[in-house]
Amino acid sequence: MRAGSPFKMALFADLHFGEDAWTEWGPQQDVNSIKAMSSVLDSETPANNIPIANASLYWDQALSPTRSRGIPWASVFGNHDDAPFEWPMEWFSASGIPQLVCPMLNFTYSGELGCNFRGTSRLQLMKNEIDNNMLSYSRSGPKDLWPGVSNYVLQVMSQEKPQTPLAHLYFLDSGGGTYPEVISSAQAEWFKSMSEEMNPDSRIAEIIFWHIPSKAYKKVAPKFIIHKPCVGSINKEKVAAQEDEMGIMKILVKRPSVKAVFVGHNHGLDWCCPYKKLWLCYARHTGYGGYGNWPRGSRILEISEEPFSIKSWIRMEDGTVHSEVILSS
Amino acid sequence: MRAGSPFKMALFADLHFGEDAWTEWGPQQDVNSIKAMSSVLDSETPANNIPIANASLYWDQALSPTRSRGIPWASVFGNHDDAPFEWPMEWFSASGIPQLVCPMLNFTYSGELGCNFRGTSRLQLMKNEIDNNMLSYSRSGPKDLWPGVSNYVLQVMSQEKPQTPLAHLYFLDSGGGTYPEVISSAQAEWFKSMSEEMNPDSRIAEIIFWHIPSKAYKKVAPKFIIHKPCVGSINKEKVAAQEDEMGIMKILVKRPSVKAVFVGHNHGLDWCCPYKKLWLCYARHTGYGGYGNWPRGSRILEISEEPFSIKSWIRMEDGTVHSEVILSS
Repeated sequence: MRAGSPFKMALFADLHFGEDAWTEWGPQQDVNSIKAMSSVLDSETPANNIPIANASLYWDQALSPTRSRGIPWASVFGNHDDAPFEWPMEWFSASGIPQLVCPMLNFTYSGELGCNFRGTSRLQLMKNEIDNNMLSYSRSGPKDLWPGVSNYVLQVMSQEKPQTPLAHLYFLDSGGGTYPEVISSAQAEWFKSMSEEMNPDSRIAEIIFWHIPSKAYKKVAPKFIIHKPCVGSINKEKVAAQEDEMGIMKILVKRPSVKAVFVGHNHGLDWCCPYKKLWLCYARHTGYGGYGNWPRGSRILEISEEPFSIKSWIRMEDGTVHSEVILSS
Repeated sequence: MRAGSPFKMALFADLHFGEDAWTEWGPQQDVNSIKAMSSVLDSETPANNIPIANASLYWDQALSPTRSRGIPWASVFGNHDDAPFEWPMEWFSASGIPQLVCPMLNFTYSGELGCNFRGTSRLQLMKNEIDNNMLSYSRSGPKDLWPGVSNYVLQVMSQEKPQTPLAHLYFLDSGGGTYPEVISSAQAEWFKSMSEEMNPDSRIAEIIFWHIPSKAYKKVAPKFIIHKPCVGSINKEKVAAQEDEMGIMKILVKRPSVKAVFVGHNHGLDWCCPYKKLWLCYARHTGYGGYGNWPRGSRILEISEEPFSIKSWIRMEDGTVHSEVILSS
């Protein structure tokens, strides 16, 4: 935190970079998504600029609006982040495999095997991100939590009292792609022991980020319009929850310091609803790839020190703001 | 061919080696499958013995009964031969990932990434097979037919008239696993140009092998019991056909030299039925892995020179023989 100003985060969800990259449609959506992210960052201006050249790969593209503005970030993986490459059926018909696609798309070319259409693993993605970006706070997480990768905790430190963390941000990998959409027992146990060790008296606020909503989201979901105590603007589909519940929610609800969980995944939902003593929130769909054409935006999260508060709202690509909610009360 | 004796092939289909390798059940099925293959080879004795030490990987295991008897072979890939590894959901519960499984199963261990549970590509499988086996006649096929790999042609040469091929055996990769279950337009075109070049006047018999039945198998499938003109012994399920038809069947039926197509895939079917001027045949399920508990066996294919004939029958693991059919008339 900087003295006298709150700590502010923008959540960019469901970016879907690199989708249908061999068509005209796909790359154009990536351009649109970068515009949406840039617009939100320019409206919220959470930090000053450190220009860094854009990289060519999709992950780097997705990071570019944040990086070019010199804003630190942290990533948590979603279900599209290590999906194996799927061969389009039409490539087996008379039109054949697009010959130009391999060098164009920066797929790995290995002499003997030709274009390599295999997917990139979460570990490779994360390693590249961390190695190439000074501003990344992402981590590959403990090995005993693999194949889940983006499992780590960041401390938000007070500028005025440097030894005092104001909040702990927990990132958990909710799977998907090449392995089940679930937060494992091992991840739940890791969160339990980390939080008990780092925050034994529950005085520091804990905020949780993962991609795929847990089953608890189904319990609190508004039925038709979004009404109090929920806050939000679109409620256009059913909660698409994780495949199983292996214990993380039970642990979260027992800790008074856990204030909120943030997820993406459902492009047509952007609400926050209370669940027992904490809030379950959706990010706002930011990407132009993937399904759904609801206007793009980003959920903003602001932590203030004196008095302590966690506030959230949604900043749209067109600059408008809505759905403000206090998550710390 | 050896002088005075026919050319004989045994078809081993749907072996399913390496399945559920972390359980007691899986490895036992591999033992059973090796026994079934060995029994058939000992009954049919198509060649003399050249002992070669067994290899440890599954593909090598599947080849071992043939190799240890010094019998040459050729492989054609099925839909399980490059399936990506699927994480069992129970590994994410409290029991966790079996720690001993990695070295036991010969998965690649790479220091930084830990046990590598990714699948093996068809190209890697084929490269290992060819590099390590003098008796293998398999090929990785032309690069422009990839990702389909096992696309190649073998000539069966007369012993008495050495320059005279008696039959051309065509192997085609019908996909599955990481890419669509289909024979592509490019493969169909490859067969057309190869066969027209190698056998312009259609004097040499052509026999075709691939794994997943084409849609034409549905048209000729017997409804209940197997009756003339079909020949076989089990008709226990519906034809599970390729996802699309990209032209191979039209090309095959136009060539008078194409005598028969052989597939596996349906463990509960073992019939041959005529389709226009050629025969559509199933192998007999040989493996103990995979679905179905019908008695195991192998379809045998015998090509005789004077007079020319293609005969086929099924040899069961218990030594019995049934379903003989002449495919050359």
